[in-house]
Amino acid sequence: MRFRLVLRVLGFLVGIVSLSMMWPLYWSLSDGTPDSGAFVASILIGVCAGALLFALGRGDDYQELGIREAFAVVTLSWVVASAVGALPFYLSHSVPSYTDGFFEAMSGFSTTGASILTDIEANPRGILFWRSLTHWLGGMGIIVLSLAILPFIGVGGMQLFKAEVPGPTPEKLTPRVQQTAVLLWGVYVFLSALEIVALCLGGMNIFESLTHTFGTMATGGFSPLNGSIGQYQNAYFDWVITLFMFLAGANFTLHYMVLKGKWGSFWRDEEFRFYVKVVLFSTVSVALALYISGHVSSMERAIRDGAFQVVSIITTTGYATANFDLWPFYTKMVLFLLMFVGGCAGSTGGGIKNVRVMVLVRRVGMEMVHLLHPQQIVRIRLNGRVLKEDVLASMTAFFILYTLLFAGFSLIMSATGLDLVEAMSSVAATLGNIGPGFGQIGPVGNYSAISDLGKWVLSLCMLLGRLEIFTVVMLFVPGTWRQ
Amino acid sequence: MRFRLVLRVLGFLVGIVSLSMMWPLYWSLSDGTPDSGAFVASILIGVCAGALLFALGRGDDYQELGIREAFAVVTLSWVVASAVGALPFYLSHSVPSYTDGFFEAMSGFSTTGASILTDIEANPRGILFWRSLTHWLGGMGIIVLSLAILPFIGVGGMQLFKAEVPGPTPEKLTPRVQQTAVLLWGVYVFLSALEIVALCLGGMNIFESLTHTFGTMATGGFSPLNGSIGQYQNAYFDWVITLFMFLAGANFTLHYMVLKGKWGSFWRDEEFRFYVKVVLFSTVSVALALYISGHVSSMERAIRDGAFQVVSIITTTGYATANFDLWPFYTKMVLFLLMFVGGCAGSTGGGIKNVRVMVLVRRVGMEMVHLLHPQQIVRIRLNGRVLKEDVLASMTAFFILYTLLFAGFSLIMSATGLDLVEAMSSVAATLGNIGPGFGQIGPVGNYSAISDLGKWVLSLCMLLGRLEIFTVVMLFVPGTWRQ
Repeated sequence: MRFRLVLRVLGFLVGIVSLSMMWPLYWSLSDGTPDSGAFVASILIGVCAGALLFALGRGDDYQELGIREAFAVVTLSWVVASAVGALPFYLSHSVPSYTDGFFEAMSGFSTTGASILTDIEANPRGILFWRSLTHWLGGMGIIVLSLAILPFIGVGGMQLFKAEVPGPTPEKLTPRVQQTAVLLWGVYVFLSALEIVALCLGGMNIFESLTHTFGTMATGGFSPLNGSIGQYQNAYFDWVITLFMFLAGANFTLHYMVLKGKWGSFWRDEEFRFYVKVVLFSTVSVALALYISGHVSSMERAIRDGAFQVVSIITTTGYATANFDLWPFYTKMVLFLLMFVGGCAGSTGGGIKNVRVMVLVRRVGMEMVHLLHPQQIVRIRLNGRVLKEDVLASMTAFFILYTLLFAGFSLIMSATGLDLVEAMSSVAATLGNIGPGFGQIGPVGNYSAISDLGKWVLSLCMLLGRLEIFTVVMLFVPGTWRQ
Repeated sequence: MRFRLVLRVLGFLVGIVSLSMMWPLYWSLSDGTPDSGAFVASILIGVCAGALLFALGRGDDYQELGIREAFAVVTLSWVVASAVGALPFYLSHSVPSYTDGFFEAMSGFSTTGASILTDIEANPRGILFWRSLTHWLGGMGIIVLSLAILPFIGVGGMQLFKAEVPGPTPEKLTPRVQQTAVLLWGVYVFLSALEIVALCLGGMNIFESLTHTFGTMATGGFSPLNGSIGQYQNAYFDWVITLFMFLAGANFTLHYMVLKGKWGSFWRDEEFRFYVKVVLFSTVSVALALYISGHVSSMERAIRDGAFQVVSIITTTGYATANFDLWPFYTKMVLFLLMFVGGCAGSTGGGIKNVRVMVLVRRVGMEMVHLLHPQQIVRIRLNGRVLKEDVLASMTAFFILYTLLFAGFSLIMSATGLDLVEAMSSVAATLGNIGPGFGQIGPVGNYSAISDLGKWVLSLCMLLGRLEIFTVVMLFVPGTWRQ
């Protein structure tokens, strides 16, 4: 491990995060609210800390990052960004403690959207803007990371995007990493702009259009309103946001190809087709259950509420237009299971990811064929190409570890006093980067009553989920730190 | 698929099950209760049905069972045994419908112990004896099946016991299948006799000693008492049954070797050491949680209740000495997770099995080593020998399918009106062959209020869990039925 290399990258990142606070500072100054002082202080602290880290890491070893440094850089990026990002919340007294501030910032940068704020609207606009901006920065970070950087260092499940793997890969777009990153940023910014325009056209003000777009495109879920999207009671907003959440949960490489005019890309991609089927089936069955049980007054409302909540959960966004904690048990179970499925690979969404679920199902089918024909060699195909052994092994290991961590963290959360449903849904909602769970942490609740230990554990879950687990757990392996 | 071969075996089995009803008929006649008529009728129907099946399957093709026939024979054995075993319950009006009778019989033969009886003690002793005897027959069936028959047809996870796999294997005992089966029956009968004697010495009457032993050694859990073992309020019974449940959850091949004087066998077996560690850690943490939260009055009681419930759940027995549904959330979560771990391979217990959990954890470690050293070939070892690739693949596929089925069936159960905890625990408790779950199906509740659809689904879960899933799902693969 070359520590100086790591420090240099982190210092640079802390600087960027700090300087991005200029934007919320603008809202704060134009509103004349007292939180502007907190932003100025945070920017100064952040820039100094960044400069210090950068100075500590200075040197003339211009080597490429190795796999060991990559694990450290990627994981610690999210940690230091949250540590610095927590400052405005803490210094403006929007949150009662630094633990809460860190939780909120990690929830933002990891695009989770779990909040400890009890009265969101009581906060100044600068703070609320910063909160939503952390989503957008985190989502952009993930797009770049998962499509342009991580594949080349061969990290965990992200190996999906390695050149050997079937399906759309960044290599198909351009041969150069930096150029790919720029193109995908472009798609992200373009879709964000489209959503802002669409929301403004519907009559939403610019502040709320911006913050809701940040929460949508990053599949985050923070809203500046206490009642999330449901507060508008507006079908147009519901459908616009459902559409953009759906797009944010799909592979951004596909969006790029479609924008280039290759419309068939969506339908040629097996993961996208699977994602569409899961969303459609879940929406129809939830809508029917809502209508039949009499939870909604009309079929239109049943479909709209069903689609919004299903898309919000499977894409791991976490916005709500209904208090699904009071819904029929069946619909709650659908949503709970969708928390594990998550978005598509190469999206801003979290969770296990559709492509892994597909491959795991095929893995079972492979075993059945093997049982009937032990001598036959069975291969799993994805988008028409055979899946490599080590990619399959890495996807399987990811699933096993995801399940084991879910069980282990649920146990810890139950020890902090949560009941079974709250404990399991708090872990599912943070490990999957969703946000709301059931019970006190449901769509109309929040995470404020969770113990400090619980908040740190869930912050770790958000980090693990965001970086597809192995990137983070590798830091706990002694071999990673060897010089 | 050679159907006649299958019919012949099933006919023989139906005959055995029917004739074994002579034993409960004895209790019924000696008590002079009206259920004796139901037993006589059941025996007649069963023997005639068995003879008919045998006649339909007659022929002179004395071939060995192939893998296709084996899937059908093994799965249908449990189905027809339950179909016939349900008759006494149904004909004596102990249960309100045939669905309930089938559920109770499947719960018995699969050694689950989930009951639909609301007032157990209101039933005549003949019926209660039959109910417990189904456990003992099912447990014996599993011992023979998993150690003497299934390994040779290469079924799913049972491949663990194939000759190539490290660890104690039936081949090490004797070279012949039939002889191995007889030896393991011997161990089963010997341990059962020991427990009967131990319970009688403590003052339990012979009827209750027999029925409780059947429930213990088969890791079943049916008790002839409404309050299960807790009704005695007797520390001696608690500890004796805890000990025998623990033994029933261990590998019977190890018991045989220990009885032959090889005391070291237990400690040389990695799975047994893992099992002991999980039991000890869970017991200590549950006992501490019970004591600290003030749920029990003394540390002795905390340890006794903790040990009993932990061992009862991990071995998938399901006896209770406390209403753990009212325990602190942490202890409930421990028990819920133990439902998935289950017993050791080669025991009468269900669940995922300790050896698989161990191997899955090592599978994750293997991936971490692979990430740091991509060129290095990493192997998983068990009892000092390298695990074969196809065994590892089959264990992984088992885990994936277990998880997927757990999710799918939980969804169905929530659609029948159960809340999240009840839906998930009903599936975990039947798929793992445990018995009680939480809520209305908790240790002081029962499955009577579950809908008919729910009862059939849970019956399927019991069957799937008992036969390690793949044996059963193979029957839904068209290729299995090809002539």
